[in-house]
Amino acid sequence: MPQTHHLQPTRYHFTFGPAEPALRVQSGDTVVAPTRDSRGFNADGQPLAREAIANQGHEGYDYWPRNPLVGPIYVEGAEPGDVLAVHIERVELTRDWGFSARNVNFGSLTGEYVGHRLLLNPPLEAARLDWQIDRQRMKGVYPMPNSRLGRAEIDLHPFIGSIGVAPRFGRVETALAPGEFGGNMDCPETCAGTTLLFPVWTRGAYLYFGDVHAAQGDGELCGTAIEMAAEVQLRLEVRPGPCGDWPCAEDATHLMAIGSTRPLMDAVRLAQVELMNWLVRDYGFDFWEVWQLNSQVGTMRIGNVVDPYYSVVAKFPKRYLPD
Amino acid sequence: MPQTHHLQPTRYHFTFGPAEPALRVQSGDTVVAPTRDSRGFNADGQPLAREAIANQGHEGYDYWPRNPLVGPIYVEGAEPGDVLAVHIERVELTRDWGFSARNVNFGSLTGEYVGHRLLLNPPLEAARLDWQIDRQRMKGVYPMPNSRLGRAEIDLHPFIGSIGVAPRFGRVETALAPGEFGGNMDCPETCAGTTLLFPVWTRGAYLYFGDVHAAQGDGELCGTAIEMAAEVQLRLEVRPGPCGDWPCAEDATHLMAIGSTRPLMDAVRLAQVELMNWLVRDYGFDFWEVWQLNSQVGTMRIGNVVDPYYSVVAKFPKRYLPD
Amino acid sequence: MPQTHHLQPTRYHFTFGPAEPALRVQSGDTVVAPTRDSRGFNADGQPLAREAIANQGHEGYDYWPRNPLVGPIYVEGAEPGDVLAVHIERVELTRDWGFSARNVNFGSLTGEYVGHRLLLNPPLEAARLDWQIDRQRMKGVYPMPNSRLGRAEIDLHPFIGSIGVAPRFGRVETALAPGEFGGNMDCPETCAGTTLLFPVWTRGAYLYFGDVHAAQGDGELCGTAIEMAAEVQLRLEVRPGPCGDWPCAEDATHLMAIGSTRPLMDAVRLAQVELMNWLVRDYGFDFWEVWQLNSQVGTMRIGNVVDPYYSVVAKFPKRYLPD
Amino acid sequence: MPQTHHLQPTRYHFTFGPAEPALRVQSGDTVVAPTRDSRGFNADGQPLAREAIANQGHEGYDYWPRNPLVGPIYVEGAEPGDVLAVHIERVELTRDWGFSARNVNFGSLTGEYVGHRLLLNPPLEAARLDWQIDRQRMKGVYPMPNSRLGRAEIDLHPFIGSIGVAPRFGRVETALAPGEFGGNMDCPETCAGTTLLFPVWTRGAYLYFGDVHAAQGDGELCGTAIEMAAEVQLRLEVRPGPCGDWPCAEDATHLMAIGSTRPLMDAVRLAQVELMNWLVRDYGFDFWEVWQLNSQVGTMRIGNVVDPYYSVVAKFPKRYLPD
Repeated sequence: MPQTHHLQPTRYHFTFGPAEPALRVQSGDTVVAPTRDSRGFNADGQPLAREAIANQGHEGYDYWPRNPLVGPIYVEGAEPGDVLAVHIERVELTRDWGFSARNVNFGSLTGEYVGHRLLLNPPLEAARLDWQIDRQRMKGVYPMPNSRLGRAEIDLHPFIGSIGVAPRFGRVETALAPGEFGGNMDCPETCAGTTLLFPVWTRGAYLYFGDVHAAQGDGELCGTAIEMAAEVQLRLEVRPGPCGDWPCAEDATHLMAIGSTRPLMDAVRLAQVELMNWLVRDYGFDFWEVWQLNSQVGTMRIGNVVDPYYSVVAKFPKRYLPD
Repeated sequence: MPQTHHLQPTRYHFTFGPAEPALRVQSGDTVVAPTRDSRGFNADGQPLAREAIANQGHEGYDYWPRNPLVGPIYVEGAEPGDVLAVHIERVELTRDWGFSARNVNFGSLTGEYVGHRLLLNPPLEAARLDWQIDRQRMKGVYPMPNSRLGRAEIDLHPFIGSIGVAPRFGRVETALAPGEFGGNMDCPETCAGTTLLFPVWTRGAYLYFGDVHAAQGDGELCGTAIEMAAEVQLRLEVRPGPCGDWPCAEDATHLMAIGSTRPLMDAVRLAQVELMNWLVRDYGFDFWEVWQLNSQVGTMRIGNVVDPYYSVVAKFPKRYLPD
Repeated sequence: MPQTHHLQPTRYHFTFGPAEPALRVQSGDTVVAPTRDSRGFNADGQPLAREAIANQGHEGYDYWPRNPLVGPIYVEGAEPGDVLAVHIERVELTRDWGFSARNVNFGSLTGEYVGHRLLLNPPLEAARLDWQIDRQRMKGVYPMPNSRLGRAEIDLHPFIGSIGVAPRFGRVETALAPGEFGGNMDCPETCAGTTLLFPVWTRGAYLYFGDVHAAQGDGELCGTAIEMAAEVQLRLEVRPGPCGDWPCAEDATHLMAIGSTRPLMDAVRLAQVELMNWLVRDYGFDFWEVWQLNSQVGTMRIGNVVDPYYSVVAKFPKRYLPD
Repeated sequence: MPQTHHLQPTRYHFTFGPAEPALRVQSGDTVVAPTRDSRGFNADGQPLAREAIANQGHEGYDYWPRNPLVGPIYVEGAEPGDVLAVHIERVELTRDWGFSARNVNFGSLTGEYVGHRLLLNPPLEAARLDWQIDRQRMKGVYPMPNSRLGRAEIDLHPFIGSIGVAPRFGRVETALAPGEFGGNMDCPETCAGTTLLFPVWTRGAYLYFGDVHAAQGDGELCGTAIEMAAEVQLRLEVRPGPCGDWPCAEDATHLMAIGSTRPLMDAVRLAQVELMNWLVRDYGFDFWEVWQLNSQVGTMRIGNVVDPYYSVVAKFPKRYLPD
């Protein structure tokens, strides 16, 4: 009988990888949990206490203090070669303020390498940029006193910036990076109504999530979206394989594959190859024929061009699937 | 008094650059001309005669036989520093068949370098892929006998694959390449209802166009869209500068900038910087404030990832412009 | 009193990261150990037994069966922020045969993504290519019956293809990847007479090494060098910081920094920034002045363009250091 | 009977492409000419007069004021498909001072795109950096008052930064760019004793050269080498094809191929494919066998990572050629 688990996290992780589970669930169960924003503040604006940071097992290590994740959730029966289907049922904002930032050595136009200065130019000055959140109308407001516009009011579209499973090889990866395990993909498609499909790399899968964004443009260009606290509801399901190499997704209108790497063109290629393999494997397409069809009807979204690996979502319209 | 010129091309060019004009027009004039498909076939399916290929001035040279262009159109009064506004009024398909292709050393997933083999793997086999065009219903049909789908019927959205002005320095560039002069950008936004905004690099501008696509997915992944003959109607207008460094565009909902280069991430950066500079220059935005706003509401389309330079369209929603 | 430890490995690792030490040493100690080739064969040609593969801690995980590493060596007193100096004293080949390979989806010209097929072209056929090793004359012989040359005899220059410490964050990374922890850099500079300088990321450092190459060209273009079994002698020394972000090295003539990432140009940038920072920090150079000097006298070697991250060695001639 | 032509240039070009010849020669002839530095100053330090700048044929065009080139030299009998062999006999410095620079939006670590600002960071301040040239001892001296070193004295190794033929298609390319026509490759191998081998793209070849460097490190990292005036002596020879797609070269010890493009990894690939094709075509190698051999003995130099296209030199040691 599927259960609903209300998880109150006491520990947060800054990495994806196997660790002592926060929760053990069965295929079909639902998980509801509050998430903190990328800098660790919760719905009440409280910072993350040091004691709540999970220890990855070795003293003296350093970690990148971004994207504290809820979990890990151990899914009974999930074996390598399976697919972990994550039905995103609800991503609800739980606060009336969010923030973005001007980052020093992080972002699409700062000659950076993931926090390292990689150029001769003087660095930018860091700045925190506040956004007011109107949850009733689902609008975000940003004051622009030096612009003729004066003030911007934009539509919000909450989604999960960071969600993934343990990588393969027993590898541990930072909460800032996306990859074949999902991770910090920063893709707006990761919203309510979408089902994510993760290849299971490690028995139990070890699902983590966090870093909800109230809104974000393509690429997450400045390095930071509108960062928010939220409550997230996910229904988890183990499906037998075969599965691919990269996270996929499905919503009402599209099948999607998400490739994450640098350089950006390789993320395009990874996503496209994954999508084509899926269409061949599960929908009876001939590879060459669907490559042509996708070349004419497929679309792509640049998810992020700021993280250690860039993410691209390759999309195929479901209206062209066979019955 | 603005005129409408009906141009019947007798010569076609495989390069962008200054050359003897096919037509001289005034700012405000309209041009109507038939265009051939990327392999030179016209509305009646007739191939391009060798005599109709414009000679670039030196014997013994080689050219890349793709994208024969109509023009050049010399625009009186267009000086470097001006903007040539090209209002795309009509892109009408004039044939009932189109084609795409499997290319040997060209395309996003063939380890190519623009027709050169760049890898050790055996090459693909070239193939021509026929599409039936239903101009009444604006549908394209592609038979897929080896797929469960059997047959694909897709919506058509004609646009101009290749349109641009003479590059700077008196440079001459192939009809296959996009750049700061426009060119073979392969961006679906280049359709009826859009106004393109080209920086003028050379007195007279020397506008060329051709290579109409009936449809195309993001990236033009296989290397070839659905190639068509068409009739194109453009209204040309010279506007005083200042102008930027890359082609821009405006349609009903968005301001756009198109960056073209390799690698793909630099095309993202070029497009974004151009868009931001435009918003600051003409719409009274403070740079940092609009960089934040665009980071949350901006979108991008990958136009092509197959040409000598990749093209990315950076878009800003006009609903966020000041009155 | 410095000791010499003769390590007879019983367990081999396919990852870099904290794990139960094979050996604990003091700063100043020397370690001598036999290493297996990249496919796990030892000096007697025996394959790696399954029982000898270290378990990374979680069941059901997958690993990439290349580059089994000796270690980890726990260095007492090594703290994050220190530098672990590894003096490479001896890299001695212990076998009379080596091998290279034609790889299926791995190599600089195979449109690959680290073992994944990333293109439409048919894959290459895998092949093992045998090299005879003459240890007396330090020559390698490769038969070339289909070439006019007939047979190639080349100079050998043994070096350690893969050597590194545990990455930060408690991260675990495959033995195939290089990074800020060193790893599979595949750089010929990593030979006897060179001192490697690793930033310590984790208390104890956790040094691993293996994958000795008898010879290799720049880039390791085909994906595989001349793979060999060897005996390696290293003297380890903990030095106090400050230290940089990337592995550095010093030999008789040059200071070096090794940047590893994709794309290749970012590896160039990382290596250059690291080298410049080092010259400023330890040799009293003004940044701008040494950037100019290095722009005129510096050299670089492309270490590898086949691994998950490419490696570039930036070199500064020691003859231009102040006394 | 081969002649020696002493060319006194009256016109200088900022582009490569067909133009009215400065000189017509026969295969076997020698050309001697003075060259100006990259900013147009001659041996006497006089700037380039406006009247001496060749008009590329269209008014109102803009040009990039770097690398004024001597030529074009029309080589009688050179037809597309031939190889123009340029034996570099002498590159003699003719001045006692040179300069380098700190560039604003140009260089390997300035987040630039060829003179365009491509990032949010404040730009660098431009600076001219003077080098004293001692032609007797062939040393360059650079004062470093803010560094402990105090002053650097380096070996000079004059070479031609910019030399090439007209590109194909009747294309015209700036003097700043390298490509399949040669151009601004900025490769130290282009020195006395080397023979360059250019594919002829246009009847007559139209050879240009200039931009001599007294010295330069790998990559030309800051964007500017030690720029000098010089006298250059070249012996030109037309050889029948077949030829490849990219410039090649030969010196006492190596065969070389020079690939130029962005991103850097594609320059590696282009150079390698060209080199392998040459070895197969002219030296009787089997492709797969020489690919293996080159993977173990080949080297590469990063020529430039600052120009519109990056250049990589792939080198194969001649000692491994068959007799």
